[in-house]
Amino acid sequence: MLNKIEHLGIAVKDIQASNKIFAELLGVEPYKQEEVPSEHVLTSFFRIGESKIELLQATSPDSAIAKFLDKNKEGIHHIAFDVTDIHAEIKRLTALGYQMIHAEPKDGADNKIIAFLHPKSTNGVLIELCQDRP
Amino acid sequence: MLNKIEHLGIAVKDIQASNKIFAELLGVEPYKQEEVPSEHVLTSFFRIGESKIELLQATSPDSAIAKFLDKNKEGIHHIAFDVTDIHAEIKRLTALGYQMIHAEPKDGADNKIIAFLHPKSTNGVLIELCQDRP
Repeated sequence: MLNKIEHLGIAVKDIQASNKIFAELLGVEPYKQEEVPSEHVLTSFFRIGESKIELLQATSPDSAIAKFLDKNKEGIHHIAFDVTDIHAEIKRLTALGYQMIHAEPKDGADNKIIAFLHPKSTNGVLIELCQDRP
Repeated sequence: MLNKIEHLGIAVKDIQASNKIFAELLGVEPYKQEEVPSEHVLTSFFRIGESKIELLQATSPDSAIAKFLDKNKEGIHHIAFDVTDIHAEIKRLTALGYQMIHAEPKDGADNKIIAFLHPKSTNGVLIELCQDRP
């Protein structure tokens, strides 16, 4: 059961410049900036309705965001859906034939546990499942 | 004032195949399918929380979706934000220096009036403003 769009992840080159753009667009300042060393990213979060916009800047060439920006322009990187039970959802989608990048949830930013689906089976859309960290 | 993510637009090649994928992922069937002849697209809409997922298939090579798929893989095409007063929002963003693709709102799918911002000024993200048709 997917409850809502939890956030949209947007890959940017310069998070300070992009913070200004999204603050102007959305009419709110980011409520949080967080470095996620395990993912080699610097993030900032904006609230919009029940969802969030997450800006992502790479902090190392090893970051998935650095690799994305090597191949693509800045832009939307992933959609994250809020789920109540991430283990049940991984099981449901795997049974339907969807390929998980993470068969087991791992820690993500903003107090979540997360798992990504492989975009090959989802029309090229990189989809993240996320649940509040228990 | 942007109220919420109204929908995410996803460019797909075969909307019937993609309807099946997104129905499985989201756990709901599309609530509407609509052809928008002025945009040369066939659309389908899924509800997810307060937002929607809009799948878009081109019906002509003149469609913006056909041109997108000539240059890109299938994937997220745009984010649409719900606004209360689209004219006021166009004025506010233009005054801030953002470039509108549509300086005046036009009719969109799903009973909306819409206007797009140029992605050059918004980190490559194609952003749509949409308001319920008055």
